[in-house]
Amino acid sequence: MLNRRFLLSQRPQGLPTEEHVTYTEEPVKALKDGEILIKNDFISLDPAIRGWMDDVPSYLPPIALGDPVRATTIGKVVDSKNSEFKAGDLVLGLNGWEDYSVSTGFVGPNKMGVIEDTFGLPLEYFLSVLGPTGLTAYFGVEDILRPKKDQALVVSAAAGAVGSIVGQIAKIKGAKTIGLAGSEEKCQRLTSRFGFDSAINYHTNNLDAAIKEATPNGVDLYFDNVGGDILDTLLLNMNDFGRIAMCGMISQYNATEPVPGPYNMWQVVVKSLTLQGFLIRDYADRFGEAFESLAHWLNDGLIKHEDHVVVGLEKTLDSFALLFNGGNQGKLTIKVRQD
Amino acid sequence: MLNRRFLLSQRPQGLPTEEHVTYTEEPVKALKDGEILIKNDFISLDPAIRGWMDDVPSYLPPIALGDPVRATTIGKVVDSKNSEFKAGDLVLGLNGWEDYSVSTGFVGPNKMGVIEDTFGLPLEYFLSVLGPTGLTAYFGVEDILRPKKDQALVVSAAAGAVGSIVGQIAKIKGAKTIGLAGSEEKCQRLTSRFGFDSAINYHTNNLDAAIKEATPNGVDLYFDNVGGDILDTLLLNMNDFGRIAMCGMISQYNATEPVPGPYNMWQVVVKSLTLQGFLIRDYADRFGEAFESLAHWLNDGLIKHEDHVVVGLEKTLDSFALLFNGGNQGKLTIKVRQD
Repeated sequence: MLNRRFLLSQRPQGLPTEEHVTYTEEPVKALKDGEILIKNDFISLDPAIRGWMDDVPSYLPPIALGDPVRATTIGKVVDSKNSEFKAGDLVLGLNGWEDYSVSTGFVGPNKMGVIEDTFGLPLEYFLSVLGPTGLTAYFGVEDILRPKKDQALVVSAAAGAVGSIVGQIAKIKGAKTIGLAGSEEKCQRLTSRFGFDSAINYHTNNLDAAIKEATPNGVDLYFDNVGGDILDTLLLNMNDFGRIAMCGMISQYNATEPVPGPYNMWQVVVKSLTLQGFLIRDYADRFGEAFESLAHWLNDGLIKHEDHVVVGLEKTLDSFALLFNGGNQGKLTIKVRQD
Repeated sequence: MLNRRFLLSQRPQGLPTEEHVTYTEEPVKALKDGEILIKNDFISLDPAIRGWMDDVPSYLPPIALGDPVRATTIGKVVDSKNSEFKAGDLVLGLNGWEDYSVSTGFVGPNKMGVIEDTFGLPLEYFLSVLGPTGLTAYFGVEDILRPKKDQALVVSAAAGAVGSIVGQIAKIKGAKTIGLAGSEEKCQRLTSRFGFDSAINYHTNNLDAAIKEATPNGVDLYFDNVGGDILDTLLLNMNDFGRIAMCGMISQYNATEPVPGPYNMWQVVVKSLTLQGFLIRDYADRFGEAFESLAHWLNDGLIKHEDHVVVGLEKTLDSFALLFNGGNQGKLTIKVRQD
């Protein structure tokens, strides 16, 4: 069996190109005891992958040079020398940009997930609204922000895979939702499709004035997907005892020199704010609760979402750039091969 | 009655001098209905006063030009046209750098505190270890950091009024305490007098290496009194799910241009850290609990502290600078006049 793979050959500065990620075709290695062979069907493309390419401490070790680019995938076990998995199992785990992944079936201390019930929903949903992005939105809202009725909740990158679900869950909880996005077209979509109460284009408006107009009583809760200047502006608009869920800093992923943090950190003290970082790994024991709630809301039509599925493994590297130039429409996923 | 006063005449850039704060002597104004006249005995000098001199949003309005410099004072009510207070009451509240303060008896929505019980301790303790600095340390440790036995707790500006009490309360709770301070002499005092497990001089050591050596299992909790580079270095050394109490940013109070926030904010996300700002006003309903615990520890000799009392109102402006050049030895307080 030939395995098409994208290997990290050199650490990128900024966006990775063919210089840094090398396409190869090579035979699949024979399984050792304890290993399973997964035929990948879907590959999740996420901004976090860019961070794993750097040689810096993170919640996962950097991708080793020569290894396939790491990504969450969904695939089918096609061979198993591990008693915990059998051929035919549908698994979700950290594998790579490749047709076939050989795995121990573990990610760190955690066993790879086996999808037992698809709730009648398409498989690729487990990489988006029922996967890391949906789970991130779910726990960020349910556990970190905990909106009360009529609280003003702002989310940045609101038209993105996480942000759009954040807004919809917050709405279900009764919050007043304000989405920030990077184009008029995205803002339009926030209110018309995703049900946000208002939307602000941070490229064309005076952001501070626009936030003050949209939140006359101040901002209670902020779901931060971007960091940088926008976090700074929000810090100035937060109410006392406000909470900020720190989810991502897309403004910094491709920076080639250190990016200063918010200038307005003093506001954290004088307003008794709480900034809380989180990762879905923190909530592994509550995934079942999240799947059920999300699937229920999806089947009831309370959550709309968009998957941007690109067909063909060979397009993975080029497609990855879409995450950083705003080119993707919804959660970006590679369908490894046409059915 | 002549009232010696220091009035804010111009907003300072950097440290205030006689150009910005004008000394005057003028008669005390007659009381209106609802007002009380306080003869100040002690004036608390705190870094926060510098922030109130700027025309920027904060937890209190900026000091108006022409008003006395705002400060917490302890004094005696000498005349009252307010039924809530009577002559002879010992009061603690936000007044000014002056002999006599006229007040409504309220600070915002809160009634000025009346000291009913001194627990047999000197009056000036209510500006230090039983006052804002002790209360800040108490709630920062008890409520924000909540150390568990053997957790590694780092505090910056550890030889200062807040930091030294933070370390001692954390020690009572069983934490392993590491103090950061700006001189060898202060570091010596941290371990020998205040009982810290270890001390690091951030001026003469490689801070990152020194923290790693002092905390081989990483840093669980950080009480941040300084912000800036030191916060940045701590972010790199925090353990997953670490908590940071954001108390002050003395590195920024006298900055004349915007100071960037921490470069390592990304660590907040990948380590699921919580940064929580707080002010003692958040805990007004728990002051009684704090007074009792602190007085108990003081009377049992479990908390040592240092008051740096300067005698003479006329020395207030010059003494204020000590806070920013490391010249004070313990909590800086003005005793308004010699007994």
